[in-house]
Amino acid sequence: MFFERVAVIGVGLIGGSFALALKAAKRCGHVAGAGRSAANMQRALERGAIDSIASDAAAAVQDADLVLISTPVAQIEKIFLSINSKIKANAIITDAGSTKRDVVAAARAALGARIAQFIPAHPIAGAEHSGVAAANPELFRGRRLILAPLEENRKQDIEILASLWSAIGARVSRMTPEAHDAVFAAVSHLPHLLAYALVHEVSERSDAAQLFGYAAGGFRDFTRIASSHPEMWRDICVANSDQLLKEVARFSAELEKIRKLLETRDAASLEKLFAEARAARERWLSGEYE
Amino acid sequence: MFFERVAVIGVGLIGGSFALALKAAKRCGHVAGAGRSAANMQRALERGAIDSIASDAAAAVQDADLVLISTPVAQIEKIFLSINSKIKANAIITDAGSTKRDVVAAARAALGARIAQFIPAHPIAGAEHSGVAAANPELFRGRRLILAPLEENRKQDIEILASLWSAIGARVSRMTPEAHDAVFAAVSHLPHLLAYALVHEVSERSDAAQLFGYAAGGFRDFTRIASSHPEMWRDICVANSDQLLKEVARFSAELEKIRKLLETRDAASLEKLFAEARAARERWLSGEYE
Repeated sequence: MFFERVAVIGVGLIGGSFALALKAAKRCGHVAGAGRSAANMQRALERGAIDSIASDAAAAVQDADLVLISTPVAQIEKIFLSINSKIKANAIITDAGSTKRDVVAAARAALGARIAQFIPAHPIAGAEHSGVAAANPELFRGRRLILAPLEENRKQDIEILASLWSAIGARVSRMTPEAHDAVFAAVSHLPHLLAYALVHEVSERSDAAQLFGYAAGGFRDFTRIASSHPEMWRDICVANSDQLLKEVARFSAELEKIRKLLETRDAASLEKLFAEARAARERWLSGEYE
Repeated sequence: MFFERVAVIGVGLIGGSFALALKAAKRCGHVAGAGRSAANMQRALERGAIDSIASDAAAAVQDADLVLISTPVAQIEKIFLSINSKIKANAIITDAGSTKRDVVAAARAALGARIAQFIPAHPIAGAEHSGVAAANPELFRGRRLILAPLEENRKQDIEILASLWSAIGARVSRMTPEAHDAVFAAVSHLPHLLAYALVHEVSERSDAAQLFGYAAGGFRDFTRIASSHPEMWRDICVANSDQLLKEVARFSAELEKIRKLLETRDAASLEKLFAEARAARERWLSGEYE
């Protein structure tokens, strides 16, 4: 497949990398970009991720055969509303949002009859760096891409979009929006919340400078995701709050169990729990769950 | 300084790296090692970390001018008891334990008049890999080494030990055992506990395989320290349980605060908290707290 004209709304790490990857794979002609930050859009142009800067999302999608919306998820409904009347019949619209139920609800509310053209998606390729400056055409190589297709979608459009992501290196899976939001609440959204919580708690203490002064490699890796984009994560937390609250409750129960082991200095049970966790992680690293 | 004969009790990642570093810096003659695993000791010999395998700790310290105890902390008191009558007058004894109050108490209980020869220390150079196979002479380069000297220690011995660690690349600081255990409960022990808790909680679910299957880079880095040595971390948790319980309480209070923000979908407060955490982490990464 080849797309004569692509629109990318939100040309950050994900949108910029997608555009660079399509170009590297020679899957597209002109890429029009739209975004909030003039400086970032200029940078996207200079990096060759996009070929033109559109004045807004509606202008960007004009004549586009493929539209990627890669903004923080709370902006997506407004974008759908603004582009709805401008979208070419048969254009494929997709997104890169980290939550899917809210994006699907926004699409149903905003797109009307064009809902069939929207195929929800989520590339699992976050990083703590944001903006097009961090974009890279190889970002999706070996990473998962989740498709959460709607029953209204044309089968051939789903196949085209899956092939396109495969062509730029992603491993494509399909999930329902509900399953997606439950799974990523556990393995992505909760860890981000815990990392933010730890760094924030330490940063507010009177002896924060001393504590950070002695923090080392374990702390650095554990908290890497606490350098993630605050607005993006605000939107994810709000959009997926019900699933995330379930995960917070599960984690709190586990932590309470461990707290009791500490209180009773139950060395054997602590070692068993740590050994089980390590063994599970080793199985994961060895590819047993791929 | 040059040590004709060094004893390393527990030749794992830390003990093995220390021996390799001393040899690379030409600061020692013969290194005798003692340890529980015959296979690991053989490997230590083959890697050139040690020059001889002693039958036990007491045999290893015979004639040694410098003794490093680098075993999980719960073993240290027994080792002190077994080596006490064999230690040369004026030999420097030190350790690499991740907790310091318990090690100091063990030394006071076991070493009697030789307490002056024991200088507590902790190199901040953990890794999720253990055993001498993971040892490396450059492990301590740029890493912190905490000295927690006793008032009985000879000033010149403290200087010698500090110089030795500096010679193999460590940045030497001094703290009291109490301050040490409080600081590392916050920036090291708690993160380890949280990482173990998350992986363990996920691993026990019926859909664990699916969850791990979609876990990506953020999860990998966040949980790296959950691959740490279970016995070592059991000992740390038990030895430092009082400080660690305080940290669990602080973290739980922070998580409860965030849980309420999720429950009320307080987007602005969530974004503020995430932005503050990110800013604190960026200040830390920029070296502001060095």
